[in-house]
Amino acid sequence: MVVTSRDVARLAGVSQPTVSRALRDDSRVSDATKVRVREAAQLLGYVPSEAGRALSSGRTRRIGLLLTDLDNQFYSHIIAPVHRELEALGYQLMLHTETADNDTIVERLLANGLDGLILATTTVESAAPLRLKDRGLPFVYFNRIGSLIEADATVVDPVDGYKQAVDRAVELGHRRIGAVLGPTNTSTAQARESALRDAVLSHGLTLAEADTRKVSRFSADEGEAAAASLLSAPDRPTVLFCGNDVVAYGVLNAAHRAGLRVPEDLSVVGFDDLPEAAWPIVDLATVRYDIIGMAEAAADLIVRRIENREAPIENVRFASSFVPRRTLAAAQAG
Amino acid sequence: MVVTSRDVARLAGVSQPTVSRALRDDSRVSDATKVRVREAAQLLGYVPSEAGRALSSGRTRRIGLLLTDLDNQFYSHIIAPVHRELEALGYQLMLHTETADNDTIVERLLANGLDGLILATTTVESAAPLRLKDRGLPFVYFNRIGSLIEADATVVDPVDGYKQAVDRAVELGHRRIGAVLGPTNTSTAQARESALRDAVLSHGLTLAEADTRKVSRFSADEGEAAAASLLSAPDRPTVLFCGNDVVAYGVLNAAHRAGLRVPEDLSVVGFDDLPEAAWPIVDLATVRYDIIGMAEAAADLIVRRIENREAPIENVRFASSFVPRRTLAAAQAG
Repeated sequence: MVVTSRDVARLAGVSQPTVSRALRDDSRVSDATKVRVREAAQLLGYVPSEAGRALSSGRTRRIGLLLTDLDNQFYSHIIAPVHRELEALGYQLMLHTETADNDTIVERLLANGLDGLILATTTVESAAPLRLKDRGLPFVYFNRIGSLIEADATVVDPVDGYKQAVDRAVELGHRRIGAVLGPTNTSTAQARESALRDAVLSHGLTLAEADTRKVSRFSADEGEAAAASLLSAPDRPTVLFCGNDVVAYGVLNAAHRAGLRVPEDLSVVGFDDLPEAAWPIVDLATVRYDIIGMAEAAADLIVRRIENREAPIENVRFASSFVPRRTLAAAQAG
Repeated sequence: MVVTSRDVARLAGVSQPTVSRALRDDSRVSDATKVRVREAAQLLGYVPSEAGRALSSGRTRRIGLLLTDLDNQFYSHIIAPVHRELEALGYQLMLHTETADNDTIVERLLANGLDGLILATTTVESAAPLRLKDRGLPFVYFNRIGSLIEADATVVDPVDGYKQAVDRAVELGHRRIGAVLGPTNTSTAQARESALRDAVLSHGLTLAEADTRKVSRFSADEGEAAAASLLSAPDRPTVLFCGNDVVAYGVLNAAHRAGLRVPEDLSVVGFDDLPEAAWPIVDLATVRYDIIGMAEAAADLIVRRIENREAPIENVRFASSFVPRRTLAAAQAG
């Protein structure tokens, strides 16, 4: 049997609207009645329907997290902290993935009655921000800043991290620097490429076209394939900077398959400092920032925005720094 | 401006209830009127409120996935396929994590208006199945079979996989077999331990207490700590079977820290065959089953159950088999 508010009303001896008001803690209901209604609800095991509550309050307390690619391990490390932080703030997380049909995703999100959205897709050509703004659904950018549509954002500044990493590589004798960069159509890859090129240039060196590859997705498989093509050349860079750690894992796999020792024959540097990068069997030199802090900040920003639409727009920037580990060592004597 | 069904009704020249009926494809509305209402809705960019729809249809088309521990990498590999399969079937995934308060989680799930639930928590003492049954919320077990409350389930049979793995280890000269088992209160760890012990016994050997550790969570950190304590003994097993791949990654890390070479000084075998296990830099011998197929089967089962409450209960079993890789090799001559 499904217990309804009618049953609770009958048991508590009040009207049905009084039941919902009492359970919403409405000030029009006396404390004594509230106690009576709650006791009746508990006795019957009554659970107020969320759909009914949403209609009366206009809030669902559900926040979406829109991802491009759930297979990217980077995301598996941010879902948990976003989920935890939202739960602590009294909201629930719904996962959504953006497929090719950008035109319909925003309609689907709206149809799901979300209170707000964390936009963790990074493709720069996405039409989602414009449509979200048109429809008045609050959202925050995760790991990037919007180029056309302004909104709250969390973002990593890769400049310091890459500067320190390249400084260290040059100090270790590396002169021929290569890269396996992230997908061109992502803002994170664009920002990282630009920071890396500047850092290399600051030493009077360049990132040669022949020593550079671009993956079309941030995945270990793509990183491996890209590195395999780079490493098969007779003459190759002594160090590879990678678009992120997941791509770097693939580069390590490619080096292993090609019979190259890391770091003796090839140095490798990642970006993100995911937990696996610190494992002794990986021990990946990388660029770190506060990834958990960024996930929590995104949750905080979207809740603040939902609860105060007029708050000034905020961009929370996270600094980056180099993490020296085994995979970056002295360049082999030419 | 928020467009409401009132606006659509005015533009289409029909009543408000006719708008919702037309958009629900109700047979009481003529096809001509349906076309007119849909055109009006499209023109105005009207999105029917999901809360309103849920109240009228009693369905939210939302399915929950209840996890114990989002940090367990195993889950990050099943979320994507469950999500994709549900989306293909017209349902949406909501993630939930079970905390200590089992008493309230089911109430929270119900309050969220789920149509059904995939129960991927593995703790045997969870009260969730009983409460879900009491409340009439359809659910399926993921990666286990319920011991008290019957429901649809997907489950892995570890017997064949462990038999093959232990046969191979014995063939390679291993006689002193150790293990880093999963948490005692999970049904997966219990089933795996029992399959492993049987396989070892079948060769007239035993899994000695001193050569066995148990982690309290399926995590690389716990695996590393457990293995560190095992490997510090003056005398140690030549091969360690692990509760799952994630635990095995930790065991590999512990061996690395202890200065032991894998597989020369120590062989390691995992369970799950997660993508990382196949990486050349990990190359973990393990037990595999169709993990993606299992995720998809769980999505299929819950949708079938929601749409037909009377269907016979189904247990989908997945066979397991041994995957030989670098980390299992000949035992060192004693």
